[in-house]
Amino acid sequence: MKTYIDEIKENESVDSLFLVREKALGITKNGNAYLKLILIDRSGEMEGRIWTSADLLSGAFEKDDFVQVKGKAVSFQDHLQLNITQIERAGEDGIVLSDFFPMTEKDIDSMFLMLMATGEQIKDPYVNQLLRLFWEDESFVEKFKVAPASTRLHHTHIGGLLEHTLSVTQLIMKNAAHYSGLNLDLLITASILHDLGKVDELSYHRSFDYSDEGRLLGHIILGMERLESKMRQLPDFPKDLALQLKHLLISHHGQYQWGSPRKPMTLEAIMLHYIDNLDAKIHGVQQFFKKQVLEGSGFSRYHPFFEQSFYLPPQKADAEPLNITEEKEIEKE
Amino acid sequence: MKTYIDEIKENESVDSLFLVREKALGITKNGNAYLKLILIDRSGEMEGRIWTSADLLSGAFEKDDFVQVKGKAVSFQDHLQLNITQIERAGEDGIVLSDFFPMTEKDIDSMFLMLMATGEQIKDPYVNQLLRLFWEDESFVEKFKVAPASTRLHHTHIGGLLEHTLSVTQLIMKNAAHYSGLNLDLLITASILHDLGKVDELSYHRSFDYSDEGRLLGHIILGMERLESKMRQLPDFPKDLALQLKHLLISHHGQYQWGSPRKPMTLEAIMLHYIDNLDAKIHGVQQFFKKQVLEGSGFSRYHPFFEQSFYLPPQKADAEPLNITEEKEIEKE
Amino acid sequence: MKTYIDEIKENESVDSLFLVREKALGITKNGNAYLKLILIDRSGEMEGRIWTSADLLSGAFEKDDFVQVKGKAVSFQDHLQLNITQIERAGEDGIVLSDFFPMTEKDIDSMFLMLMATGEQIKDPYVNQLLRLFWEDESFVEKFKVAPASTRLHHTHIGGLLEHTLSVTQLIMKNAAHYSGLNLDLLITASILHDLGKVDELSYHRSFDYSDEGRLLGHIILGMERLESKMRQLPDFPKDLALQLKHLLISHHGQYQWGSPRKPMTLEAIMLHYIDNLDAKIHGVQQFFKKQVLEGSGFSRYHPFFEQSFYLPPQKADAEPLNITEEKEIEKE
Amino acid sequence: MKTYIDEIKENESVDSLFLVREKALGITKNGNAYLKLILIDRSGEMEGRIWTSADLLSGAFEKDDFVQVKGKAVSFQDHLQLNITQIERAGEDGIVLSDFFPMTEKDIDSMFLMLMATGEQIKDPYVNQLLRLFWEDESFVEKFKVAPASTRLHHTHIGGLLEHTLSVTQLIMKNAAHYSGLNLDLLITASILHDLGKVDELSYHRSFDYSDEGRLLGHIILGMERLESKMRQLPDFPKDLALQLKHLLISHHGQYQWGSPRKPMTLEAIMLHYIDNLDAKIHGVQQFFKKQVLEGSGFSRYHPFFEQSFYLPPQKADAEPLNITEEKEIEKE
Amino acid sequence: MKTYIDEIKENESVDSLFLVREKALGITKNGNAYLKLILIDRSGEMEGRIWTSADLLSGAFEKDDFVQVKGKAVSFQDHLQLNITQIERAGEDGIVLSDFFPMTEKDIDSMFLMLMATGEQIKDPYVNQLLRLFWEDESFVEKFKVAPASTRLHHTHIGGLLEHTLSVTQLIMKNAAHYSGLNLDLLITASILHDLGKVDELSYHRSFDYSDEGRLLGHIILGMERLESKMRQLPDFPKDLALQLKHLLISHHGQYQWGSPRKPMTLEAIMLHYIDNLDAKIHGVQQFFKKQVLEGSGFSRYHPFFEQSFYLPPQKADAEPLNITEEKEIEKE
Amino acid sequence: MKTYIDEIKENESVDSLFLVREKALGITKNGNAYLKLILIDRSGEMEGRIWTSADLLSGAFEKDDFVQVKGKAVSFQDHLQLNITQIERAGEDGIVLSDFFPMTEKDIDSMFLMLMATGEQIKDPYVNQLLRLFWEDESFVEKFKVAPASTRLHHTHIGGLLEHTLSVTQLIMKNAAHYSGLNLDLLITASILHDLGKVDELSYHRSFDYSDEGRLLGHIILGMERLESKMRQLPDFPKDLALQLKHLLISHHGQYQWGSPRKPMTLEAIMLHYIDNLDAKIHGVQQFFKKQVLEGSGFSRYHPFFEQSFYLPPQKADAEPLNITEEKEIEKE
Repeated sequence: MKTYIDEIKENESVDSLFLVREKALGITKNGNAYLKLILIDRSGEMEGRIWTSADLLSGAFEKDDFVQVKGKAVSFQDHLQLNITQIERAGEDGIVLSDFFPMTEKDIDSMFLMLMATGEQIKDPYVNQLLRLFWEDESFVEKFKVAPASTRLHHTHIGGLLEHTLSVTQLIMKNAAHYSGLNLDLLITASILHDLGKVDELSYHRSFDYSDEGRLLGHIILGMERLESKMRQLPDFPKDLALQLKHLLISHHGQYQWGSPRKPMTLEAIMLHYIDNLDAKIHGVQQFFKKQVLEGSGFSRYHPFFEQSFYLPPQKADAEPLNITEEKEIEKE
Repeated sequence: MKTYIDEIKENESVDSLFLVREKALGITKNGNAYLKLILIDRSGEMEGRIWTSADLLSGAFEKDDFVQVKGKAVSFQDHLQLNITQIERAGEDGIVLSDFFPMTEKDIDSMFLMLMATGEQIKDPYVNQLLRLFWEDESFVEKFKVAPASTRLHHTHIGGLLEHTLSVTQLIMKNAAHYSGLNLDLLITASILHDLGKVDELSYHRSFDYSDEGRLLGHIILGMERLESKMRQLPDFPKDLALQLKHLLISHHGQYQWGSPRKPMTLEAIMLHYIDNLDAKIHGVQQFFKKQVLEGSGFSRYHPFFEQSFYLPPQKADAEPLNITEEKEIEKE
Repeated sequence: MKTYIDEIKENESVDSLFLVREKALGITKNGNAYLKLILIDRSGEMEGRIWTSADLLSGAFEKDDFVQVKGKAVSFQDHLQLNITQIERAGEDGIVLSDFFPMTEKDIDSMFLMLMATGEQIKDPYVNQLLRLFWEDESFVEKFKVAPASTRLHHTHIGGLLEHTLSVTQLIMKNAAHYSGLNLDLLITASILHDLGKVDELSYHRSFDYSDEGRLLGHIILGMERLESKMRQLPDFPKDLALQLKHLLISHHGQYQWGSPRKPMTLEAIMLHYIDNLDAKIHGVQQFFKKQVLEGSGFSRYHPFFEQSFYLPPQKADAEPLNITEEKEIEKE
Repeated sequence: MKTYIDEIKENESVDSLFLVREKALGITKNGNAYLKLILIDRSGEMEGRIWTSADLLSGAFEKDDFVQVKGKAVSFQDHLQLNITQIERAGEDGIVLSDFFPMTEKDIDSMFLMLMATGEQIKDPYVNQLLRLFWEDESFVEKFKVAPASTRLHHTHIGGLLEHTLSVTQLIMKNAAHYSGLNLDLLITASILHDLGKVDELSYHRSFDYSDEGRLLGHIILGMERLESKMRQLPDFPKDLALQLKHLLISHHGQYQWGSPRKPMTLEAIMLHYIDNLDAKIHGVQQFFKKQVLEGSGFSRYHPFFEQSFYLPPQKADAEPLNITEEKEIEKE
Repeated sequence: MKTYIDEIKENESVDSLFLVREKALGITKNGNAYLKLILIDRSGEMEGRIWTSADLLSGAFEKDDFVQVKGKAVSFQDHLQLNITQIERAGEDGIVLSDFFPMTEKDIDSMFLMLMATGEQIKDPYVNQLLRLFWEDESFVEKFKVAPASTRLHHTHIGGLLEHTLSVTQLIMKNAAHYSGLNLDLLITASILHDLGKVDELSYHRSFDYSDEGRLLGHIILGMERLESKMRQLPDFPKDLALQLKHLLISHHGQYQWGSPRKPMTLEAIMLHYIDNLDAKIHGVQQFFKKQVLEGSGFSRYHPFFEQSFYLPPQKADAEPLNITEEKEIEKE
Repeated sequence: MKTYIDEIKENESVDSLFLVREKALGITKNGNAYLKLILIDRSGEMEGRIWTSADLLSGAFEKDDFVQVKGKAVSFQDHLQLNITQIERAGEDGIVLSDFFPMTEKDIDSMFLMLMATGEQIKDPYVNQLLRLFWEDESFVEKFKVAPASTRLHHTHIGGLLEHTLSVTQLIMKNAAHYSGLNLDLLITASILHDLGKVDELSYHRSFDYSDEGRLLGHIILGMERLESKMRQLPDFPKDLALQLKHLLISHHGQYQWGSPRKPMTLEAIMLHYIDNLDAKIHGVQQFFKKQVLEGSGFSRYHPFFEQSFYLPPQKADAEPLNITEEKEIEKE
């Protein structure tokens, strides 16, 4: 059974699975080798030490491995530390991912079905086919369901990319319908695919970080590669539609300084940019409130990325009367 | 009957109402005084000249007056110019405003009723009362129905402020319902009132320009004055609600460089900022396309405010299939 | 008698008044509850611990209370810490404010009299009346005399707002007289009132920080509210004068990025902006030198707000010969 | 024989080939239709008018056609204007491109051979193969030899892209050799391919402008498409090499605000960015001097893109003694 | 006697002195050479034409010469133009500079005496000597009395540099005396010398423009050269005083983007920067009002450098009561 | 013999030379004075304590002195600390500079000879003489050979300024020869002298930091002083050449925000700016890789000045085939 790191107390014995975040060799003042580990699970992180047979055990596992660990929690300089007596690499079979990483609170498969259903409302046969090619690509779908949307700012959990994509797509349907003259088929497709490249930009199997491709190319370029690779299988895909879809994808960050090689030039691209931003910011600030405004209302600390602090007002008991009705309508869609 | 400026041909006699945009005294090479006018109506502008009795006629009307003019169109240096023989100030009674200014294409009274109806969905008694105070202020309502939303960028026509306000409020209802945890009553009220100060910032009776108050204080400060003046009539208005509403109003431009003295710090303020921006930009670019992309599709010229050009793709005959269904739902709301 | 924190030595017994800056509940490794406090006075801050009856004592006082404390100073991990045996909330009666907060070195009442006297030189009856309304508002005057001018940058002490206001007003009189064409009555009034909203923006009874209103609205908006509330009592106040005064108030930060919703557009507003900035920066850098250049001359460390370091040259013994004469003249004014 | 526009005099008869830059229908004051043309060739532009059979002739040619024109030069409002009596579309066969567009002063085929020869020095078999695929793509090579490098700033002539590419590649070889630790094979390949997408970004057959793809996607994205399309034909191309090459291509503008989705992160990318910039700016300023500093030395007018003016000092007769020797070495390379 | 350009009427004969601003050779439609001139004086500018003996007369004078011109004013395309029959270069002896350039409204010699008198109040013998070296440098003083302070923004007239320098120095004395701890001797010296390099940066004998040195080096570097050249004559000048004075000179623009290689780091440098800015802006806006707000009050047009418009309120008859008293005090200083 | 700090182990006795980086007096909890030192050498830094006779020994040496120290290494709070029993100031005679500071890996005298040899290729007699004056100035040459090029970013070692200067000069010769129309004599001279002022801007005898002159004036101004001081000895130096050379020196940072009072306006200045930047950045990133990418390839951490991280790809065994040939050519030059 899993013992969570934040439950471990001084002098307790521990026998549980953890993930190795860091692994380094140290030398004691007496010149003996030992291993310094940082072990993590969903609930936090903890230092570990292997004082004996360090060289031997060092070969038995690597950074980013899941390991079964036996040891005892001791106090060192006011922190708990695990003195490890036994450690071995664990296969992935018995791993429950949500023991180690934050997960979306929504159901991944339901969200995915809802997203596919939305795509099926598209009448244009070409974009319809295009989406189907993505859904039939099992390796893509597997990653798409698991990837987070960001390492720091918003939807930073397993399933976050899907959650954000569905949210943007639902919002786009509402907002686009408000105006005449927008190409809705195009907009829905672009909403579904806009952050596509994040399946390659981020690595998220053992930790949330940028992949090498992610750092050197970014998800806009990586998304373009995946998009073009599918389009090549549809030789009749209309050229002007392809051009507009690509423009939507590369301009959705809205500004050069946010890595968009183009600013949005069509009405569809303008809308996608605003709605994507809105969803990322609302979700990002809500997530920040959860960690920073523990008492339920008040000012957060300074947010380094947004360069300001935020305010969560006291919630009224009977707030949001209109909310419920509208939410139902959405679920019918 | 009104003769429109863009229909006048060389050597035609003209007898019609115009608005005096500019009026200046000139001296001919022979040392005689004459009057140089710029006359406008909805369709364009035209130079006018009064060669005789200039001093006398100069006293009979001022810049920004409506005038009944008799004269003849002559060609001077490749432009048409009106040689005026008779001119007199016209009272406002016979004036049809839409002869002189661009008008919203929607029905002003219907829009206003729809906006009031939206406000009535609010359950919170205080903001409810607050809105009612505004609707009962006849002088305010009269201006609110007529004012444009901007002199240059978007909704630059009679009724534009109301049109933009209704559009933002409708969008806010859709978007706010998508998230839990937002104070919808507060958000709807803020949507309705966010650009309130524009009734004083812009002058729009004889031309679209900034008023002195508008230039020196801006619509955010002017809106705050109107808001506080109404709140004073509601001594029980909860302090924290007032504070949040004021914050929504002063932060809705989102950035210091756009004249907001505060950046949005609450979820409601973040959403209002994005949706206000989205509506202004979508409408502004659509309006720009109408003037700049006459052929129905293609690239616009460079837009000096947005510092880019825009692209209107060719429209497909059967576009927007989902539009219709959704539009109906909106009208039911 | 007050024992100052920076005088407490290891193993000393302490019995004195302090202010509770932070209060939190901790759990020892053995599972017992204890209280962690941060106590402050004018001279510094110190950790406190209540190891016994923590639950009981926790209810006896709150963060930001003045407390009478008995205990003993012990050394823990190279820092002194107060082991508290008795603690109780103190009433405000016996509190000497300057024991707890930095105070202006000048006499508050003299400064206030000098400021009022300056205001009386104004000939314009309307602004004269306006100022009198402020001076007659006892609750305002009380705050105005005590408030600091800033939490970090300049005049960050009790009485700092008054000190800065007087300084700006005196400078304005000198500088305005140098040019012809400025409305001196208006400028003096604006100098006196320019930072008025800081009495509400900052909270300064138990610590120097921003109030909720201060964070969500800022002192420019808060000052406008107070100004308008007084103006309403003067129904004959000339509209153009009111407009100019408000413009001076909202534009005095000079730049959008500093939270001014308007840039200074009149000569008076331009001057107020520069002189306000000059006084804030000279005082702010002098204050920074006091803390950062202890040896009397040399380079300060990097100033994070101004993004540079500053240099205080060695002072010559006989410096500033003209200073003395001129200083006298000022005092006569 | 070609008559150049800048040689045409008043009252002369003209019979020559021109390119139609603009074509519009006008209505005379008498209500008759006429055609307004702007005709261009290498030497300048000139207005043309077709007063009779405008409707008929209007169908005979389009904007951007080459036309054989007969007419007479007349003076209208101080400008020369061509009254056209005969006009017909010309086939492309007899067209000498350099009669209509500015051309590089260097020999296009020699430059191309030199570039290919440079590429052949590369030892890495994969990039070697990659370059060969480009050289074997006749449709690409044809465009690559003709395209300008920019519409306004530098190398704005037929062959300019090739000239700039060769120049950057030669400079890179010199500069890269100065440092140890750079991957020269990679750098040379990236130099040759860095502006590859410009063959699609710009349209340059009838005028120098951006293509639709160019405006909506930009040459960085368009270049990535061409690069990936070739790489797909080389299934063994090493992944890390591909990643580095793509990074070089998308980061060569160096800054987000110049449309690079990534800043240069490798030593090779840093160098390519600086050398590309150096060559573009030196050539751009030299080109600007040619038009703006006709007298051989002095200050140019303000350059709107670079936001400054430039200075061309008087040239000494015996300047650049070292130049000659070094130039020879280059040609040997 | 001087005939001013703005007094010349159609068909009048003219015989007067003018300054040649532009001179160019033209070719008539018939192939004859003629000379196109732009002639200026204080009152404006006018085109001139020499239709006969153009080649001959072309050698008789150059751009920037004063010329005695005979001719007749004719009307061409709605503008007056001078048909010149005789022209010859004029020596500088008879030239009254104020006929050709705008002049300060104050007395140059009085201002200069006042500035010297201020400098004599300095007690520090080294800076005292330094100033004396400047006053004894006749060639410098001659330029210093005549130079404008700027080509466009403020004090753009003969004597403007002196007027601005005196104004800044007087303001500095008032403001510096307000604070303790400033080195007044140093500040006064720096005020007097801060724009010193403008005597070389601007050329102002025949027109107001930048000299070559001014464009390539700027007045901060040019001022440093003059300052060091004088300091070299004072071998005992204290090193730390020299360092501080140089820092004041190079940092007075306050910001890197305004060409200051350093930001102000001492209290004296901070004050000089603000007061210099204040005086330049107040004077610049007053000058702008004179040209742009002819009706005595109202909004100016957009100021391209300051990127805003300005507002001149209606002046009250009895404004500035305190002005007079204070002004007297200044004159006593 | 020197004992290096990173080799000292717990409980070892130490007797070696160190440099005193910091020196401060402390008071033990028992009220006794002791001395806290930070000692450094090339290999790192270490705390030192003098527990007895602190007052006495305090007078025996100062911060920035070399000292001969006897003591014992003890462990305190998990760090090693030196308990000093004897300490005395060391003369500079026996000091080996490279024991204490990082040194260039190249030979200083060879680099200097190579730089002088490059200067001798210049044919223009004036710049030739100018360079000779610098080489004959022994005090300058001594500093020039030792100074680092920067305190943090690039070439931050003894000899770094010379190494960077030679590198830029060699690159300039290659790049300048690629273009026609550049004044090579001028460019080489400017390359050699461009960072000249760094000998005064930085202090580097006991630590790498900015000198007072460096902070208050910067190396551009300091370099101008040295340049002018030499030019004064060459009264015939052509004025236009001097002007161009000074412009090259003051504009080489390229941008106002980097402290250049002018942007590069000549082709030579443009090139110097880019090549200087290229060399500084390539070297700076290589140096950063050495400290940050210890494992030989991968991503560096975030670089605070460049605001990004960098990537060092895995090196191929047989990389840079062309390098060797080209390197030889350089050495021949």
